[in-house]
This record gives sequence, structure tokens and C-alpha cells, in this order.
Amino acid sequence: MKTIHVRSSKGDYKILVGKNLLPRAGTFLSDVFESQSKLMVVSQKNLTPYLNPILASLKKQGFKVQTHMLPDGERAKSEKELFRLIQTLLAKGFERKDGMVAVGGGVVSDLTGFAASVYLRGIRYVNVATTLLAQVDSAIGGKTAIDLPEGKNLVGSFWPPALVISDVRVLQSLPERELSASLAEVVKYGMIRDTELFGFLEKNGRRILQRDLNALEKIILLSAGIKARVVSSDEFETKGERMILNYGHTFGHGIEGALCYGKLVHGEAVAIGMMMGAQLAADLGICPRELIWRQMKVLLSFKLPVSIKRFHLKTEAILKVMMKDKKKSQGLLRFVLPRRIGQVTVEQKIPVSLIQKIIRLAGGK
Amino acid sequence: MKTIHVRSSKGDYKILVGKNLLPRAGTFLSDVFESQSKLMVVSQKNLTPYLNPILASLKKQGFKVQTHMLPDGERAKSEKELFRLIQTLLAKGFERKDGMVAVGGGVVSDLTGFAASVYLRGIRYVNVATTLLAQVDSAIGGKTAIDLPEGKNLVGSFWPPALVISDVRVLQSLPERELSASLAEVVKYGMIRDTELFGFLEKNGRRILQRDLNALEKIILLSAGIKARVVSSDEFETKGERMILNYGHTFGHGIEGALCYGKLVHGEAVAIGMMMGAQLAADLGICPRELIWRQMKVLLSFKLPVSIKRFHLKTEAILKVMMKDKKKSQGLLRFVLPRRIGQVTVEQKIPVSLIQKIIRLAGGK
Repeated sequence: MKTIHVRSSKGDYKILVGKNLLPRAGTFLSDVFESQSKLMVVSQKNLTPYLNPILASLKKQGFKVQTHMLPDGERAKSEKELFRLIQTLLAKGFERKDGMVAVGGGVVSDLTGFAASVYLRGIRYVNVATTLLAQVDSAIGGKTAIDLPEGKNLVGSFWPPALVISDVRVLQSLPERELSASLAEVVKYGMIRDTELFGFLEKNGRRILQRDLNALEKIILLSAGIKARVVSSDEFETKGERMILNYGHTFGHGIEGALCYGKLVHGEAVAIGMMMGAQLAADLGICPRELIWRQMKVLLSFKLPVSIKRFHLKTEAILKVMMKDKKKSQGLLRFVLPRRIGQVTVEQKIPVSLIQKIIRLAGGK
Repeated sequence: MKTIHVRSSKGDYKILVGKNLLPRAGTFLSDVFESQSKLMVVSQKNLTPYLNPILASLKKQGFKVQTHMLPDGERAKSEKELFRLIQTLLAKGFERKDGMVAVGGGVVSDLTGFAASVYLRGIRYVNVATTLLAQVDSAIGGKTAIDLPEGKNLVGSFWPPALVISDVRVLQSLPERELSASLAEVVKYGMIRDTELFGFLEKNGRRILQRDLNALEKIILLSAGIKARVVSSDEFETKGERMILNYGHTFGHGIEGALCYGKLVHGEAVAIGMMMGAQLAADLGICPRELIWRQMKVLLSFKLPVSIKRFHLKTEAILKVMMKDKKKSQGLLRFVLPRRIGQVTVEQKIPVSLIQKIIRLAGGK
């Protein structure tokens, strides 16, 4: 087991990465909560197989354990589910010293973390990350949120977990498409910060897709380490450093929005977005053209899409969604663009005509 | 105009105390928000007289000003009103750089501050405190909350304002009973931390009740200064220092709860609670008996109640509510008790029989 440290204004916390950690959850949580504390384990029905070893371990440690199941999918991130969880905490008499354990991916940790941040003005919670995406991204950094009818993640908080547990073994049962989509974010970490990680992905595509546990553990450690360093130095997204995590996301959100969040999952849209980012960087003379091909080769090796041709999307439809981006500054879109593998830059003054050209090159009508 | 400084993890902020500050609100807010920022002014109908000079001043400064009115009274602190405000912010296109201005007492700042803490994961807000209680207590320190059917302030956050504006002039139109009730909290500050303040209250009861602006300004400055120092050193109520602000509140909450939050307003219950606290301290030999009488004399000079005789409350009913206190630690009630004027201590191991005796002495059946 390896440990990554994260700094936060609410206290530092650890990310534990290793094989077979779930049955030891009770031991790890005894460093966070007093013995006999109440713990609300929050999860989703499709994750039941992971729950049993965790619940057994927590009970063995002497915690008073309750479970609370959220509906499957993104609809768990609603006002209704937020207050249903809070009412359960109240009904079970949870106090400030008690806590929650989010067992799942980003949906579960976003909702649980948000409830934790506002219940009695804040209690602690632990993320047990059961997807690759959660292990390298959403479980780390304390961004919590619910969705509103008007859009995703519009209400939330920065509320860091007290501990993150990433058991590599859970990835063995991850659906193939979800594994691939999460790998887009891993490629992103390589592109923005880490030539070693990118080189490893270039050489070990097959091992990773075959879910070799040592290969998965290595890319999780390197990716989670990058995320940990970025959020440690820019906890509240105020200093610009967290911005680099958006590589591929400005175009990606445009594509997702134009598709009304169907057909492509987030990681797939990010893969295409990174291709568009690399193309834009090359057109601007910021990076060598060769980088486009190296990035494409890695993405294709993970069975990720690299263009939007098959969706017959209108260029203007994508552009319109992009212009609504909440990270826009003074009406201008900001793009994270590669300089070389492992290094990015933020560019703001991109002519709209060039953005349109890039979308068309990627297959926009 | 005088300035008090408060430290917080989200950045330090100022409390401005003076006469006729409302018409200068725009100037003060230009230190907090970029020119041209959108500002949502949140208030209640009964506060309309204060709104006009503020709105005029903000508009003159170039801010894009919207207003949002909450229903009167405590029912503004609801889930429904929270999300209604958030939907308004969304509909008007508020971004992270924009902000809110809470014009009112604790109800308005609690709801506005909570909405500010979760909208887009946090925007800034300013408190314009229009009651004495807000000026010396609720506008300072960043505690925000809404109520649930199960109880008050059960969901909320610690989210400090970016600025607090306390215009002494607004107190001239404050209802008499509200002025008296707020003075209970001022007496509390004297009792827990400030012999100078307590002495001033002993000598100037009449001037204060007659709303002499210089006298009011003095007690606001001293009281807000104490609150500012306490919350600066214990922002998240984790170090025990914020605890001393609860002098009179453990008994007070018991009385309020047993009366189902009718008949007595909060400050009146706190006045009786302080009398019970002083009695308990004297019985324990912690403070001289003379302190009871000095405190009673000041409270009576402000027309505050000092016993519960006229309510015919059962001792056990009060005790039962007290035992549900969320600041309880390991099943034991903690009492803030006076040692002498200006100094308190926290006592935990008080026999239940003694608590019962104190309630009976104050008029419990």
C-alpha cells in the first residue's frame, strides 16, 4: 500500500492506494473517527458487492454503522436526495463527531461530500473510490456538488474528505467502456504534467486494458499524485493552478453539451477535446505537430474516440455551449494547451474563427 | 467611523461601525467587488426603509443591482427559500466574481450567507446589519444556516462575509422589545470578557434605552470587538474558545424549547439563562454571590426578565430540552459560568440534581 498526502485548509488527508484495502477499511477509519462513532455508509445499489467487506470491517472495529442507498446514476445528485440523506442523519442522531463513508464513484462522493459539508455546518467523510475516474480524480480535492434542472454542479462546496481509499482490485469488475473513459483522464495527467506517466501509457496499453493490477496501481499513483499536488496548492480554484486540470475539457464540455450528455460519456468527450486542444496548439505554433499523433496513438490504444465525425454535430452548436462555460473570464474562453508532453500553457485570446476551424477539423458540420 | 478586523480562512474582513453608513455602501463595497459586478441585495419587506439609500449608493457606484425579498420572520430560513434565491441568482446569470448583500438581521444573513456558500461552490457576500443583535453577534463570524422541520440551524456552513456594515442610526427605529433583547447579548459580552463594557452598561442604562447614538456606538464597538476576537481564534468552533459565547445559552435554549419558541424572544431567554448560570456558579463556589445581584440589576435596567415564574414551566421539561443540546460532549452538558465580571470558565461535571435545583430557583415547577 502506498500513501499520497494532500494539504487542505480543513486539515491534511491521505490517499491510500493498494490491493485489497476494502476489508481493512475499519482499521484505516480508526485513524479518522473515535471508536464507537456513528458512520453512515452511502452508496448505490449497483455497488453492493463492494459494500459487504467494508461494512464487516467497520463493524468489527466497533463503529456504529448505518447504510443509506442512493438511486443509480447522476439523478442521485439532486436536491431531493441531498435532503433525504440529511433527514436520515438527523433521524439516526448523528452528531458533529460522527461521519460518513462514500462508497462509489463521483456521483456518490459529490452528494455525500456536499451533505457532509452542510449537516450541522460540517461533519467529516471518507471516500472509498470504486471507479478509476474517482481514484484518479473525483475522490480527491474536495469539490462536492448537486445538479439543478438548470445545469450540473451548480450548487456545492469545497469540503475535503478526511481520507481517500483506492483499492485497485475493484477495477477488475469495472465495465470496459468506463475503464477506457477514465483512461482519458489518465492520459490528460500525462499530457499536462508527467512525461514518465505518458511514456508508461505508450508502452503498456495492452497490460492496462487487461487490468494488470501492478500497471493500474502505477497509473493511479502517478495520476492521483498529480491531482493531489494541484489541489494542495490551489484548494479553492482561485490561483489558476487547478485550471490546468481542464485540458481537453473546454472543447469536451462543448461536445457533451451539444450531444445533450448522451452518446458519449465524459471521458470520451475529453479524449476528443484533447485532440482538438492539441490541434489548436499546433495551429498556434505552441507545440510540435508530432505531439498530436503521439497523443492520438495512446487514446486509440485505449479504444477512445478522437473525432466527432459520426455524430453529425453542427460547429455552431458546440461553440454556443462552449461560450456558456462557467470558467470563462471577462467573456473570453480560456484554453489549456500543450507545449510538449508533460507541459501545458493557458491561452485566452483565441480568435473565434480559429476555434470554429478546429471544431470543423474534428468533424463538426 | 471605526473599523474592526476579523481573521478567517477565506480571507480577513472588516466590520465598519458608525453613523450614517448606509448611503456610503457603494464606496465600501467597491473595496470588495470589481466595478460592474452583479450584486443581489437580499432583504425582507419590513426593512424597505433601509434599502433605498443602499440601492441608490450601489447603483451610483456602477454595480448591477438586483433585489430579492424574503418572507418576514424565521420562515425565511427554509430549504424552499434557499433554492428560490439560488434559482434567482442562476436566472440573472450571477458568476463567481459577483456577490450578494444581506440587508437585515440574523435571519437574512443566515439564509443569504448559506446561499452564498453553496452557489457555484461559493461566492462572496456582505452583511449590512440592521438590528443590534446582528451588529454585535449574528453578522460576525460566518455561521450560516437554514432550519429544518426537525429543528433550527441544522443545515448550514461556516462562510465568512467579505465585509460587515453596522450603521448605528438604524437602531433608532428598532422596536423596544427587540432592543432590550439584544442588550442581553451585550450584557453577556461584558460578563464573559469585558469589565469596561459591563461598567459602562451599569452606568448608562438610561442613555442606551433612549438610543443615544454615541452610547450605542460604544457598546457595539466593544461587543463586536469581542465577538471578532473570539471567532478569529476559533473560526470553526473546534477549539473551545467560541464556547464562551454560550454563556446563558444552555439554560436559555432549555427555556426557549420548553416554551416552544413562543412568549420569550431569544435574548430574553438568554437573560434568564445568565441569571441561572450565575446562580449555579455561586452555588458551586466559583463566583461571589454579589455577582448575581450586579448582573440582575443591569438586566432589569434594560427591562429584561430574570425568572421564569410567570410561565409555569415544568423543571423536567426544561431539562429534557437542555439534554438535547448539540454542543453536548459525551453525554454531558457543558456550562459556561462566571468567575467574576469579565471572566468565565467552562464546567462539565455538574450533577443533574444541582441543575434541577437551579431551574426550580428560577421558577421552574
